[in-house]
Amino acid sequence: MSHQVSTGPAKREVSSGPATPYSAPVVELLLALKVAGLDQLLALDDFAHVDSDAISSVLEEFGRLANGVLASSDRVGDVIGAQYDPATGTITTPDEFHRAFSHFVDGGWSALAHPREFGGGELPTVVSLALQEMFASANMALSLNPVLTQGAIEALLQWGNDQQKDIYLARLLTSEWSGTMNLTEPDAGSDLNEIRAMAHQADDGTWRVSGTKIFITWGEHDLAQNIIHLVLARTPDSPPGTKGLSLFVVPKFLVNPDGTLGERNTFRAIGMEHKLGIHGSSTCVMQFDDATGELVGPRHGGMRAMFTMMNAARLSIGVQGPAVGERAFQHAFEYASGRLQGRTGNVKPPERSPLVDHPDVQRMLLLMSTMTRASRLLLFLAGGQKDHAMHLEPGPARERAQQMVDLLTPVAKAWSTDRGVDSSSLGIQVLGGAGFIEEYGMAQRLRDVRIAPIYEGTNGIQAIDLVFRKLPRDGGKWVRLLMDEVEESLAKSGGVDLSTATSVVSEAIMHLRDSTEWMLKTVESAPDDALAGATNYLELFGSAIGGWLMIERARLASAEGHSDAERIALESDFFAVDVVARSSGLVRSITAGAHRLAAHAPQG
Amino acid sequence: MSHQVSTGPAKREVSSGPATPYSAPVVELLLALKVAGLDQLLALDDFAHVDSDAISSVLEEFGRLANGVLASSDRVGDVIGAQYDPATGTITTPDEFHRAFSHFVDGGWSALAHPREFGGGELPTVVSLALQEMFASANMALSLNPVLTQGAIEALLQWGNDQQKDIYLARLLTSEWSGTMNLTEPDAGSDLNEIRAMAHQADDGTWRVSGTKIFITWGEHDLAQNIIHLVLARTPDSPPGTKGLSLFVVPKFLVNPDGTLGERNTFRAIGMEHKLGIHGSSTCVMQFDDATGELVGPRHGGMRAMFTMMNAARLSIGVQGPAVGERAFQHAFEYASGRLQGRTGNVKPPERSPLVDHPDVQRMLLLMSTMTRASRLLLFLAGGQKDHAMHLEPGPARERAQQMVDLLTPVAKAWSTDRGVDSSSLGIQVLGGAGFIEEYGMAQRLRDVRIAPIYEGTNGIQAIDLVFRKLPRDGGKWVRLLMDEVEESLAKSGGVDLSTATSVVSEAIMHLRDSTEWMLKTVESAPDDALAGATNYLELFGSAIGGWLMIERARLASAEGHSDAERIALESDFFAVDVVARSSGLVRSITAGAHRLAAHAPQG
Repeated sequence: MSHQVSTGPAKREVSSGPATPYSAPVVELLLALKVAGLDQLLALDDFAHVDSDAISSVLEEFGRLANGVLASSDRVGDVIGAQYDPATGTITTPDEFHRAFSHFVDGGWSALAHPREFGGGELPTVVSLALQEMFASANMALSLNPVLTQGAIEALLQWGNDQQKDIYLARLLTSEWSGTMNLTEPDAGSDLNEIRAMAHQADDGTWRVSGTKIFITWGEHDLAQNIIHLVLARTPDSPPGTKGLSLFVVPKFLVNPDGTLGERNTFRAIGMEHKLGIHGSSTCVMQFDDATGELVGPRHGGMRAMFTMMNAARLSIGVQGPAVGERAFQHAFEYASGRLQGRTGNVKPPERSPLVDHPDVQRMLLLMSTMTRASRLLLFLAGGQKDHAMHLEPGPARERAQQMVDLLTPVAKAWSTDRGVDSSSLGIQVLGGAGFIEEYGMAQRLRDVRIAPIYEGTNGIQAIDLVFRKLPRDGGKWVRLLMDEVEESLAKSGGVDLSTATSVVSEAIMHLRDSTEWMLKTVESAPDDALAGATNYLELFGSAIGGWLMIERARLASAEGHSDAERIALESDFFAVDVVARSSGLVRSITAGAHRLAAHAPQG
Repeated sequence: MSHQVSTGPAKREVSSGPATPYSAPVVELLLALKVAGLDQLLALDDFAHVDSDAISSVLEEFGRLANGVLASSDRVGDVIGAQYDPATGTITTPDEFHRAFSHFVDGGWSALAHPREFGGGELPTVVSLALQEMFASANMALSLNPVLTQGAIEALLQWGNDQQKDIYLARLLTSEWSGTMNLTEPDAGSDLNEIRAMAHQADDGTWRVSGTKIFITWGEHDLAQNIIHLVLARTPDSPPGTKGLSLFVVPKFLVNPDGTLGERNTFRAIGMEHKLGIHGSSTCVMQFDDATGELVGPRHGGMRAMFTMMNAARLSIGVQGPAVGERAFQHAFEYASGRLQGRTGNVKPPERSPLVDHPDVQRMLLLMSTMTRASRLLLFLAGGQKDHAMHLEPGPARERAQQMVDLLTPVAKAWSTDRGVDSSSLGIQVLGGAGFIEEYGMAQRLRDVRIAPIYEGTNGIQAIDLVFRKLPRDGGKWVRLLMDEVEESLAKSGGVDLSTATSVVSEAIMHLRDSTEWMLKTVESAPDDALAGATNYLELFGSAIGGWLMIERARLASAEGHSDAERIALESDFFAVDVVARSSGLVRSITAGAHRLAAHAPQG
């Protein structure tokens, strides 16, 4: 795409196909799944119904959907977006969203990883992460809809009673109905202690929920026949703080015993936010007025149920990092390949070189692609461990897998979404002036992905979760085990020369080990010091483990005779030198303590 | 500002005063000016007409203007923005812009640093940088108008003939008329070899200019009575490449000999870009059709004249980094101080802590404030050297000052604008969900400042300028001189304990020295390797010199008995540990060469 001079008025072309290129990276996704242990997973009894070829076909076929209607509806979602009517409290989405979403629903894509008992395909969840990545690359705003639905499904699967499962699950699984999480309130953001929404039990055993919830993603819309809200609220007898929270299922339309839709429930969207990005998704203020709902799980068990939803969602949100990074990279690469600018190497006037021949542009492209790939590997590693934790026989291996999910999830969510922001900002830089012009579509990448480090627990909160909850488990046993295994793996020499990457990553793991021991010692003795270093510690963690995974990927590609094996090996070197080594510069700040933060107030 | 639930329709409050806080940091600006050598400057004969108190008053008074109408018109500029009418090719700006700009013009602020001969105040240009920072903090889009005008002034001052100076300068100096730079064309972005605009000489000696120019900032608007375009074009006899370019002055309205406005010239804005940010400024596609102009400077001397404009503008654009960073910091600090979230330290329920008490939030705020301050110091250092280069007696000291301007300008422009992007993105993170909501105003900071690393020469081009043009001058003499002087300065112990900062920065200077020697050796022998490392080298350069300047600032504050001296010392420690040490992680990538970039193409 060369520069198009805009000669007309402020019209925006919004319905003429995909504004920016996207081609689902199926080969790369399959490689990443294998690095994450897909073959071992498929060898488990629970996955006897599926093999590697079937997974490959699923990726191919969903890739075609993503490349097509999902990607082509992305632009109109940004420019027109969700439209709120304050008179009725209803929100409409562009026609293109209806068309795209019906392809998704009708194709049966929504239920792929869910239990067959409720109509699912029971594929590994890590495969659904790969699908979610393609969906979010193609259309991040629309892809959020099934992500939220998935959270509701997980909550109902784990905590719902049989009747609730019967009523809700089948149509949530297909995405005919969609689900939401109603947690945040105007005065309770990351801190759920302050939640004030209240539920009273009616004579018939159902509940009446009242209160205001904010930042409710896809809280109201016209894509589904019904919207099933999962709402955190207090009960009259509840203790203060998060221990007093219970979870309620509150459908937009009450559901009759025969499954048909009944009365409209007594709540509505009383506002919709104007956001920096993801304009196609509605972000609602919901007002519940004695809305009819049912308790899900035990009374005062709301926090545990909420963590079920959030844990399911954290990896899905994390995937938005490589998703947007991948599309930004493909777009930047295409632009840089076509745009002539100056000369490099032996090119003489009047010849000109494409941008992509300039070393600094190549460096930016490689930063984008390798950060994207390392993010994907981290997320898939956590997702693959989750499958192992669900499908291995109970025992030490299963326990280990669950501990690895818990340890890796905050790292994967935070590190990957931060890299998604980095990549989309680099994408703008590669396009230069065109990157700043909305019609070129790269600006939307940055505007969209900027939310990912914030929602589903800010990245600062992920770092606290890592350092204060995950590291200290069993005295630090699991984080040490991970580092031991990584070091053992690094010590093996593969069939391809990865000496640069191996030496840089080994050094980073040493730094990570030192920082980890400092954290383990400090969380108890000087928690503010640990809090002061938590975010930078998480970044070092993600870079070091990401660097190791990039080496694993290169080894696997080499072992499998991958046609791009040499280039993949170079990528692991680049990532080590340009990303991992840089993160090693964080070591000093990680252990520098909280006293240095005393100067945070303004002067002048 | 606590979270405001938006309950209404998609209305946006745009005219009710400043949306986000801003208070011009006058004390801090004065301190930075002194670190940059203001006192030495004022001791020069050329500045006998001004003293430190006068500078202080100027900052105070302009600060009030910035805090008032300039800041309060910022939001409407973003929401309504410049409006293009394709039928007439005219562009209108919001009423608030007219009001704000008339205060600026009527106050005589525009001409402060220009020669008294043409109505200027002949203050040091580094003082005008401080004013430009305040203007850009308050309203970046509007502040661009006088920045461009200043470029036109510099070009006419240096290259215009007496008649051109007489006609144009007085009213450009007041900003009654505004100026533009017309360089870029659809097929010639950073590479001006490809410029195709053509000028033919008419019988009366004037020229007729034809061609299409893009990305013309404030190319058309209704804030000034006349717009004076400086246009790069070829002449029929010109050699190919940049050597064949000449500069022409092409006014929107021809100017009669008596200074009154004559005919409308034959060019117009045929389009206006829809940008990610700075919506209040127009970015135009200009079509010149035999437009009447005059040659400025010698025929085929266009590149030198253009460099005059660009050099003037680079520091002014660089200043947008700390400008937006400062406002984002103030906003984030205010939000974090008012917003209660969770508990920290010894706070027990039901008490809650403000966000600002959380260590990770303090860390983000300090990153924002110290990156902003270091950026300002770097820019003012370059600006102060520029004043020395203009006002010292000819001789070695003057030569040294000019070399330092040349060396520091690309670093200051690129490093500072990158940090401005970092700071505004951190500002969004501090606000959390609110940061992603447009009404809170932080999102605009990121959208606005994202252009600064791109225009006025992309930051990648600044790095090439640094490594290929500035470093090798006189065999590397000047960059070595700078490092020698920094090391000498670091070796002195001041009145305040800066041992942490000093040790980290000294180490970084050592790294910088090694990297510099590698670059000096490599630019000739393996230019692609030098190109591959140039951007990371520039980042290390900026961080290391910035770290030294933060130490200088702390020493000066201590020596002057500044009331915040202790806090300022802590800031220099924080900056060293969290920014400078991190940049030291770049060393490996700087010298890693271009062969590692061979993997930049996509896979999968």
